[in-house]
Amino acid sequence: MTAPRRLSGVLSPVVTPFKSDLSPDRARYVRHCKWLLANGCSGLAVFGTNSEANSLSAEERMVLLEALIQEGVPADKLMPGTGCCSLTDSVRLTAHAVALGCSGVLMLPPFYYKGVSDEGLYRNFAEVIERVGDARLQLYLYHIPPVSQVPITLALIERLLKQFPASVAGVKDSSGDWSNTKAMLDAFAKSGFDVFAGSEVFLLDNMRGGGKGCITATGNINPGAIDKVFRNWRGPDADVLQKDITATRNVMQKYPMMAALKAVIAHYARDAEWATMRPPLVELTPAQSKALMAELEARGFDMPGLAAASATVTA
Amino acid sequence: MTAPRRLSGVLSPVVTPFKSDLSPDRARYVRHCKWLLANGCSGLAVFGTNSEANSLSAEERMVLLEALIQEGVPADKLMPGTGCCSLTDSVRLTAHAVALGCSGVLMLPPFYYKGVSDEGLYRNFAEVIERVGDARLQLYLYHIPPVSQVPITLALIERLLKQFPASVAGVKDSSGDWSNTKAMLDAFAKSGFDVFAGSEVFLLDNMRGGGKGCITATGNINPGAIDKVFRNWRGPDADVLQKDITATRNVMQKYPMMAALKAVIAHYARDAEWATMRPPLVELTPAQSKALMAELEARGFDMPGLAAASATVTA
Repeated sequence: MTAPRRLSGVLSPVVTPFKSDLSPDRARYVRHCKWLLANGCSGLAVFGTNSEANSLSAEERMVLLEALIQEGVPADKLMPGTGCCSLTDSVRLTAHAVALGCSGVLMLPPFYYKGVSDEGLYRNFAEVIERVGDARLQLYLYHIPPVSQVPITLALIERLLKQFPASVAGVKDSSGDWSNTKAMLDAFAKSGFDVFAGSEVFLLDNMRGGGKGCITATGNINPGAIDKVFRNWRGPDADVLQKDITATRNVMQKYPMMAALKAVIAHYARDAEWATMRPPLVELTPAQSKALMAELEARGFDMPGLAAASATVTA
Repeated sequence: MTAPRRLSGVLSPVVTPFKSDLSPDRARYVRHCKWLLANGCSGLAVFGTNSEANSLSAEERMVLLEALIQEGVPADKLMPGTGCCSLTDSVRLTAHAVALGCSGVLMLPPFYYKGVSDEGLYRNFAEVIERVGDARLQLYLYHIPPVSQVPITLALIERLLKQFPASVAGVKDSSGDWSNTKAMLDAFAKSGFDVFAGSEVFLLDNMRGGGKGCITATGNINPGAIDKVFRNWRGPDADVLQKDITATRNVMQKYPMMAALKAVIAHYARDAEWATMRPPLVELTPAQSKALMAELEARGFDMPGLAAASATVTA
């Protein structure tokens, strides 16, 4: 079998809904994934940082991934996060995703031990690729040093690309440092390495630099407007459109991001249980939530069709 | 059932041996655990940071723990690490350890998300205690901010102790900051909260301050001398004994600790395969290893009986 067609555009690290007993909520999850694909997302980077994926067990992730596909979410729209602290978990989740036909996987480096060498990280990714041993594997490296504290360096990318050119497909750069994204684009984009910005704030710059889109937290709530920038990045109003999505992002960034995303979905879906967070994360306070909704409303923000979709299924 | 007798003295976060295919090596593991208990360790904090435990899956940890008990290592000498990023994994590993009769568990906070609130961490530990729901559970909090980046604050300990006085048994302080260990001793030791220093460098100070011992990486190679400080901490030569173990520690700290521990065991057991590390960690270079052994030999360092024990079993 050959590698699947690669994703581009706006990908959302889908937030994971929990029931009041903190177990993953399959029905709300499937519904939100379908809403995202119908409203601007070209793909779903499920089990990302903003998905609270690192608060899920490997088994919980596999059950949710199978549920999405069973419920009709196309596997070739999925780029699940499969990078764990443990090599054996990373291999297991990656092999599972590839076997299900997922378009790619987004891999964190092992993130418990700090100050590890590029040699050790190279061995980790090389072992995963070799043990999965499947030509369909499209591996995207996940660079998010503010959270993982373990960076993916340019030298590491170069070595992995040289050794595994058919498997190493790209990167998500969540460093928040445009000069780093630009260095990745300049060094590797021409050789077919797909660079995704980790925030829509850099979407237009990334497209102009040869990138493929963005994988962004706020893709969970504002996919249509972000997708508009992606589709019109060569157009005359690209900068104006970019300015608008950046302003919405800036509102969201005043609050703890993951709790804020869920609060917004709960509000626009008229479905309070959506706000539930799994420890160690906590919900917004009522005051934070109220202030956030007021700011979004002042911007004319909306999530079209969300309340109707929720009402249908929860009825 | 009631809570087991609490451990005190020198505990080793046992290094985990791997075969050349990077799978855990059961025979070498059991052998090393038995050598440690026969040579100065009062307990084994298996699956700690220095055990590369965060490079193991939950299943791999459970298989190894069961192997130890099957092979005759007393469960009441064991304090396995059971704190994971995922609440569900932490509950599963903790319940498993308690069911096997382990003396206690040493729990990292969930460590992927950074800057989390004490409220979120409280909810995490409270959920584990409530879901395990077993009066035998003795939970030791694991404070190691240089690696986890998520601290266990005094306020969090106070709240947990107040709510769960029978389950919250103590702490391992691997901050490397004596003033923090002292603050924990001053605030909680008198109410039956057992403070273990995270390095033997602070063993004598910790005993004098009302602590219970240390849980230390170098317990893997130097348990006898460290135990001598523990047993003689009230004696006239305590400071001289402390100076000696600190000097050995200082030699080890010049090298990447986990790789150095395994290199020392490989050398004194005459068993080269012991040096194997699982990615993202890597072995010492031959030059590093040679320099380390020369420094230890100059100090008259030895691991009595280790080569004989290894020869018997590998023969």
